[in-house]
This record gives sequence, structure tokens and C-alpha cells, in this order.
Amino acid sequence: MTAEIWDVVIVGAGLSGLSAAHYLRKRDAKLKILILEGKDRVGGRTVSSEIPAANGADVWDFGGQWVGSTQKHVMELIKELGLEVYPQFNTGKKVLHVGGPDSRVRVYRTSIPALSPLVLLDLTLFLWKIDRLSGTVCVQDPLKTPNAVELDGMTLQSYIEQHAWTAELKEQLGVCSRSVFGMEPSQMSFLFFLMYAAAAGGVLALLESTPGCAQEFKIKGGTQQLSECLSERVGWKNVRLGSAVTAIWQDAEWARVTTSRDTFLCRAVIVTCPPHLAAKIHYQPPLPTMREFLTQNMPVGHMIKFIITYQTAFWKEKGFSGEIVAGSSSNSPFCVTFDATSPRGNPALVGFIAGQQASRWGPNEPGERRGAVVSSLVKYLGPEAASFIHYEEKDWAKEDYSGGCPVNVMAPGLLTYYHPSLRKPCGRIHWAGTETATQWCGYMSGAVQAGRRAALEVLVEVCHVVLTAEEQEALQQSQPAGSRPSSRLLCLFSRKAVVAALTLSTALLLARRYDGLPRIRTYLTDTLSARKLNVLPKW
Amino acid sequence: MTAEIWDVVIVGAGLSGLSAAHYLRKRDAKLKILILEGKDRVGGRTVSSEIPAANGADVWDFGGQWVGSTQKHVMELIKELGLEVYPQFNTGKKVLHVGGPDSRVRVYRTSIPALSPLVLLDLTLFLWKIDRLSGTVCVQDPLKTPNAVELDGMTLQSYIEQHAWTAELKEQLGVCSRSVFGMEPSQMSFLFFLMYAAAAGGVLALLESTPGCAQEFKIKGGTQQLSECLSERVGWKNVRLGSAVTAIWQDAEWARVTTSRDTFLCRAVIVTCPPHLAAKIHYQPPLPTMREFLTQNMPVGHMIKFIITYQTAFWKEKGFSGEIVAGSSSNSPFCVTFDATSPRGNPALVGFIAGQQASRWGPNEPGERRGAVVSSLVKYLGPEAASFIHYEEKDWAKEDYSGGCPVNVMAPGLLTYYHPSLRKPCGRIHWAGTETATQWCGYMSGAVQAGRRAALEVLVEVCHVVLTAEEQEALQQSQPAGSRPSSRLLCLFSRKAVVAALTLSTALLLARRYDGLPRIRTYLTDTLSARKLNVLPKW
Repeated sequence: MTAEIWDVVIVGAGLSGLSAAHYLRKRDAKLKILILEGKDRVGGRTVSSEIPAANGADVWDFGGQWVGSTQKHVMELIKELGLEVYPQFNTGKKVLHVGGPDSRVRVYRTSIPALSPLVLLDLTLFLWKIDRLSGTVCVQDPLKTPNAVELDGMTLQSYIEQHAWTAELKEQLGVCSRSVFGMEPSQMSFLFFLMYAAAAGGVLALLESTPGCAQEFKIKGGTQQLSECLSERVGWKNVRLGSAVTAIWQDAEWARVTTSRDTFLCRAVIVTCPPHLAAKIHYQPPLPTMREFLTQNMPVGHMIKFIITYQTAFWKEKGFSGEIVAGSSSNSPFCVTFDATSPRGNPALVGFIAGQQASRWGPNEPGERRGAVVSSLVKYLGPEAASFIHYEEKDWAKEDYSGGCPVNVMAPGLLTYYHPSLRKPCGRIHWAGTETATQWCGYMSGAVQAGRRAALEVLVEVCHVVLTAEEQEALQQSQPAGSRPSSRLLCLFSRKAVVAALTLSTALLLARRYDGLPRIRTYLTDTLSARKLNVLPKW
Repeated sequence: MTAEIWDVVIVGAGLSGLSAAHYLRKRDAKLKILILEGKDRVGGRTVSSEIPAANGADVWDFGGQWVGSTQKHVMELIKELGLEVYPQFNTGKKVLHVGGPDSRVRVYRTSIPALSPLVLLDLTLFLWKIDRLSGTVCVQDPLKTPNAVELDGMTLQSYIEQHAWTAELKEQLGVCSRSVFGMEPSQMSFLFFLMYAAAAGGVLALLESTPGCAQEFKIKGGTQQLSECLSERVGWKNVRLGSAVTAIWQDAEWARVTTSRDTFLCRAVIVTCPPHLAAKIHYQPPLPTMREFLTQNMPVGHMIKFIITYQTAFWKEKGFSGEIVAGSSSNSPFCVTFDATSPRGNPALVGFIAGQQASRWGPNEPGERRGAVVSSLVKYLGPEAASFIHYEEKDWAKEDYSGGCPVNVMAPGLLTYYHPSLRKPCGRIHWAGTETATQWCGYMSGAVQAGRRAALEVLVEVCHVVLTAEEQEALQQSQPAGSRPSSRLLCLFSRKAVVAALTLSTALLLARRYDGLPRIRTYLTDTLSARKLNVLPKW
């Protein structure tokens, strides 16, 4: 078996790998860059597929779908590739179902969730606390965070148990964790959670669909186009599909990258696949101990995404936005849905079965799971939900060379003991993938940032290119994690929290004295409504 | 490439795999059993090597070394193979260094550690609490434990933060965690810790070297003999070294097991390697999602073990037992040492560099690490420690086809969401290895139990053997986790805790009133000494 010779081999044709290739080519058009991909397609955790719809057929995203205006790396790429974005539809009634399968399904029109004043207060204060904490995290070097070891020694769940008072809030926080990570709050380090939020510019930025937040826009035609356009730019001949890398061996002169069929020699390798997949590659010499322990402590989330198409957007006609939040106690397989009507006007809903709900429903037969999804939609939006055109789902845990979605989290203790290995090159191997990003880590934008950063490392190490000042800054990752879109909201929040706390305390005192709790609760709800207290995360 | 045909292929020639093979052969001598091992030796996490010693040379264990009388599976095997055990030497002065690098090194002769009464009380109550909790755990089905989800949603560290009062106790609990798991309390689920203790018969059983506990005996000639004798029994021709399994494919008729050189067809496979290594094998059809998530959430510990040989056992001559406990704040690379004088009388000490101390010292040059170990021994035992014959260490994280030691722990949330996959066969694949044991999980005895259980599964599934009543019971793992050797101690403990608590409270009250705290402390120490309050774990 003779080995082909390349300058750089990139493992993984997702957004991170292709962004790295694209950047390398832009800086040095002569570089011979090969991208090896295990799947039979490019795009990694983004995939856009056509399914039957009202007007015949249309394209939806079955992986990453949202971008936001503060996600500068992906927004620049979208612009560069000539793609267009459109906002997430979120007008109308929202549905909220927590507190047990038989509890009342709450529907509300305002921006205030239909929660009791006590839960609202609990939510407000809790979000204020964790956002303030996330503001203290140094994403580049999380151990610089005050009380880092303590925060990393506990799970997000432990923090919730200590700081959330009401069962309803705890259940809603479970929904947040599931929607963002495909995991439960018990499965991740609290410091990791704070770092992840800090990399996005704040906790609310992860949860909201308002300007600057994670769920602001979608890409017309689907997000997989990003990878397809990038493949065009770097040349499809340089992208080899169905070529899973099994081994990377290094000696003084070369890195030798092996697939089941071929061997390639190169000067540098950029590994972009998520940590649990990078762990399956055989390395010679072995990776440093700390790197091996790092990958062992970064499990991936579990998310099943579905799109269900309809003849008409009956939910809009009935005044619903399409947003449903269903807690783990609700019997619903999904934790959250949104309107997913296409830019061409084909009505659809998108939903996520994630975390413990994916553990519960993942092993069922597809028909059973679909039946349970449709039943829940009927329960929440009305009988029209039963007459769908097509239901299509994607269980990312079952996708070869993914094994899970949307992101790998960090188990407690990782940041304390192994974090320096996250981005540190191992000889000729450089690490990318959205998990290594410092801005919007875990998102498409993070994938692009990480790819570019790894490309810069290679430019310096292999090509001895002199970086521009801007590139040097990007390489050092010294930039703060963008503006904090939530800080403005949080200022409002903290003021509101004080107002709400005072109002509530007074009300409760009065209620206790005059035994007038029911009336006071009604009054409080009205008061808070009038203030338009915006506290429910809009995933 | 033509494939050899076998009845059963076992992945891993450690104690678990060889025990499985041995049991299968005993039940059906006609079975064709092949054992494939990546390393160039048998024994897995046990290895016994000869190093220079006072009388020329002698053999020491560089992996698992201790067994105990309640570890019935390994004790039966030792007897069957005609090997002998001898007790761990633990007579004499012990050394304790916690509270910072410049704090006083405490030396004590009694069974009571040289701790202040307050720390002693804290330790007593803490051990009593966790042992009581571990008594509520159902090892076979840990979700049946009261408050299981809550206990699994927190780290051991979180429990320590909530229930240990004194910094010294917290530091000592770090030493416990490092010595037992090679990991920090922040890195594991609290429910996992309780289950692990329950599988050993109680928390103290993990920590003590008294009868029934984990560090009771050693095996004359070394523990690797167990695997070597088993290989003799099953036939060395059936053990292939240097044969790492890379893939296991299954179809309706066969399992196809592949190494880099060969392919083998068989009716059943027993995978015995630890979860992080089993995750590197390529499975077709893919393993169930829950099994993949299970292996992603079971990182392995980090332990460097050293043996240092001397001309004379100078520590014994000076009245020391050889036991040193050094906290993470001590600047010592090791967390614990013991006397390791061989049955042939060659003086030696054994020590462990583990958890965060392994993270800190592992990347150093070997000479630097040795220098630091010797300096610490000089500090704790006297200048004679500098004149050693030989220092030999083994960093298990750097051992191919191990990657860590002594055991894989479970990250928070695993037991709640993925535990049913731990022992559940996947088609023709059966799972063994000490991590799957229900009695002395993580120990050599657990490895033997797990191997036998997997063998029973194969006897039923593949050979359609009718099991004896005893075998059926073993297969159902319905047996409780043996006697609880610590329960007797704990009864004593709880009485002593009450006495100590009352004495201390009175003393503190008196001290506050009469400003006589220093004298009261002396009194208390004397009183507690007189009572021979036995509260320090003897690792």
C-alpha cells in the first residue's frame, strides 16, 4: 500500500473541518489539503433533507438549524457564501405542561409564562444568579474562575437542588438542559455549564430566540449548504467520503493517517470529530495521558429531532406560535417544539426528544414514538394535529460517525484536571470541532471558530506563515466571548427580580395576615403581567 | 483471509476473561475457547515483576495486590490454584500529613489517628452516615435505592461538602478516593460510590486492612500467578497475546471477531476489557445507544504504583509500620504508602501516586518523580529512606490496553439512565470485567465473579446447559453482597460516635465557659486514646 502525500489531512467534513480547509486554502492556495469523512455526506451534525410537504416537498434541517446575530463566525461565513437567514417564528400562544401528566396544560399569550408568582420569582432569581456566576467564568482558562474547583466538583443538578425552590422550576430547568445539551442537569459539571453559557454571552443567550440569542435565525435552504458550499470552495476532489480514519501515527517527519482502505502522509492533521469519536482512533505514539482522560470525560448528548409537515399551519390559525414546552413528568416524548414553516410556506413543526426522554423513547419502535408525538401534539394544539402529511425523525445516537447530538459535555472534575489538553496540539495533531471553541462552543459558530483557530495553528507550525495582528488575536483566543446579549436583559431582570421579590413578600405577608392568598395571587399575576416580566426561556 | 472457527472467543486475558474460560472448560471440556489479548502478557491489571532487592532480586506486584477473606470468588480461586496468602504488615507508628505543606507531620502509635477531637468526631459521624447510606443500596438494581436519582445526580464531592465539617477530614476523604479509585471525589457519582462500597460489604471494607477488608492479604509470589495458572489450565495454546480485537461483527449465525492480523468466527463473545477500551472496538451492527452512552460515562482512574527496595527495613527498626497518608496539600507525590517487605524478607515499601497527584506528577520526568518520592519518604521516615536499592514504578495510564487503573468509575447520571446496559448481552456479546461485578466490583474478586457470570450466560445461551441451582443463583446475582464486615465496626462506631459527640460537646461547653480549650483538647485526646477509638481508615 503506497501512501499519498498531502500537506494537511483533516479528519471530519463537518463545519469545523471544512472551515479549517477553507481558511487554509484562502491563506495559501498551494496547500494540498485532504478532508477524510466517515459518513457518505458532508455536514457532520448538520443535515438538510427533503420530505413530503404541502406543496409537494421541501427541505428541513434535521441537525443544527439556528444561528444568531452575535455568532460572528458563522454569520460571516453565511455572508461570504451568499446564503440568507430568516427569523424564527415565535408569535402567538405558547403551551406549557409541567407538574405531572394530569396537571393543567397552560396556555398564555403574553411573554410571561403561565406560572404562579412564586415559580416566576424563583425562575427570575435563579436565572439572575447563574447568569451572574457565568459572567465570572474565564472561558479560555476556566480554572481562573472564582471557586472554580468547587463549581467543577458539582453537577448542574446539585446547584439546581440548592438554589431552585419550586418543583416546577426544577422541571423547567430539566427541559432547558435537555434542549440545549441533549442531557440531564445531573450529567454535567456546573462549571462546564457556566463556561458554555459564558461562551455564548450569557445564560439567556442559550435559551432565547430574541436578537443575539441562539435561536434567532434559520438558514434558507438548510444549514448543510454551509458545508456543501465550503466543499465546493475547497474542491470536492479533496473531500473523501466513506473514509473513516482508524489510526494516526506520527514520526519525526510525517503524520501517517490510515483509513480502512488507504494511508496518507502529511505534515499536519486537524482532528475535528467530537471527543468520543476521536477516542476511537488509534494513535501512535499514544496521546498524552491527560488527553486520553479528557476524551473519556466528555460524553455526548442524546437528541432525536423530528419534523412533522401539515397541509395548513392550523396552529397559527388558532393563534398558537407552535412553541410547546413539556416537562419530563408530562408523558410527552418531546421536551420542546417550535414552528418550522419553511420560507416557501410549507407548514411544519419541529420538535426534540432529548436527554431522559430520548432514553425512554429511543428504544421504542418508530411507529410507537411517532404515535406518542402526534398524541401529544393533539393534546396541546388540537385534533388537527393528527392529520399530518409526513413525520420524519432523526435519532443522532444511531447516526454512524456521530453517535449523539448536539454536543459533548464535560463531566465534573474535567475542567479541574484535564482542561489544558482540550486545544493543546499533540505533535502534528491539532484539535478542532465545536467542543474546542471559546465563542459559542457547541454551536455551528463555535465549529467555524475552532476550525479557523486550528488552521491558524497549522499555518504557523507547518507553513511558517506570519499571521496578521487579527489572526494572532484569534489564535490566542484572547477575545472576550463577544458582547453579552443577555446582560441588558439581566439588568432588567435584576430590577424586576427586586420588584417581584418585594411585591411577593408584601403580598404573602398580607395574605398570611388576612388569609387572602387566592386573591393576592390573582393580583400578583395581573401586576406582573402588566409589567411584561419576560422570564420564560424561549428555546 | 480465512477465519478460524471457535465456540467462544474471549476478549482480554485478565482475571475476568481467564476465569470465564476456566469455568467454561470445567463445565464442558469439549468447548473450543480462544482468548485474545492485546498485551504481550496475561493478567490485565495485575502484573508481578522481579526487581533488584536486598537478597539479589525478588518479585513484587505492580498492579492489583490485595485480597481479603470476604472476597469469596478470588479466595476460592486462590485455593483451587494452590496459591498462598499472607497478611499485610501494619504494626507500628503511622504517619499522617494533612493541612498544608508546612503543617506538622503527625506520628501516632495507637489505632487512633493523630487528629484533633473535632476532626475525629467529624470523621466518625461522616463514615457512619455514608456507611448507613451504602447499606440502603441495591447493587443489582441501584435505582431501587431510596432517593437513587438524587444520590446519582450529585458527586461524592458534593456530599462531602455538605456533610464533612472540617478541612482536614475533607482532605483525608480525598486521599481515600484517590487510593481506592485513582480519582477525585468530584469525578464520580455519589450513588456509584455507595454502590461500590455496598458491593464490598460497606465503606470501611474498602479502606481497612483488618479481617474481611480489601487490604487484608497479599498473594505469595504475586497476583499475576492467578492469570498464569489459569492460562495453564485453559491451555496456553488457546491464549493469543499481542492480538488486540479491533472489530466484532454479528450476523444471524456467527460473531466475527477481528484483530489486526486474523478473523475468528464463534457462537459467543465475552468482552472483558474495561469500558473505555471496549468503546474502541468497532461493532456491527452498532451496539444499542444506551450501551454506547454507558461506556462514554465510565472513565478510568489514574494510578502510578511504585515499589522501592531497601537493604534493611529501617522503618520497622524505628518502629514505623510503613503506612504514610499524605494529603493533596502535602507536596508529596504519593497519597499513601505501606510496608511491602516480601515473604522472602526483602524489605520494600509500596506507594501510590493517584488522582490529582498523578495528574500533577505523571507528566514529570521519571527521575524528578522518583526524587520527589524519595524526598517525601526521607521527610516522613528519616534519612535512611534516601539509601534505597531500587525504585520501580508503573504508570498504568501509559500501559497499552489498560490506559488507567484500578477501575472505571461512573459519572453522575449513568446509574439513572444507562445502568441496565451494564451486564445486558448485546446479541452474541456478553460483558464481563470487574466493573460488571455485584460483589467486590472493581477488585480481583469482582473480576472472577463477573467472568463466571458471563460464562454461565454463555453456557445457557450457546451450550444449552442446564444450570445447577447454585449456578442459577449466581447468574441471577441475587445473592446479597456478602456479609458486611464493617457493620460490626460500625455498631461500635455509632456507639463511639455518641460517646465522642457527648464528650466533645461537654468539653467545648466547658472550654467556652472557662476559656480552657487547650487543656480540654489534651484531655479529650487522652480520653479518646484510652477508649482506643478506631476511626482512621487503614488503606
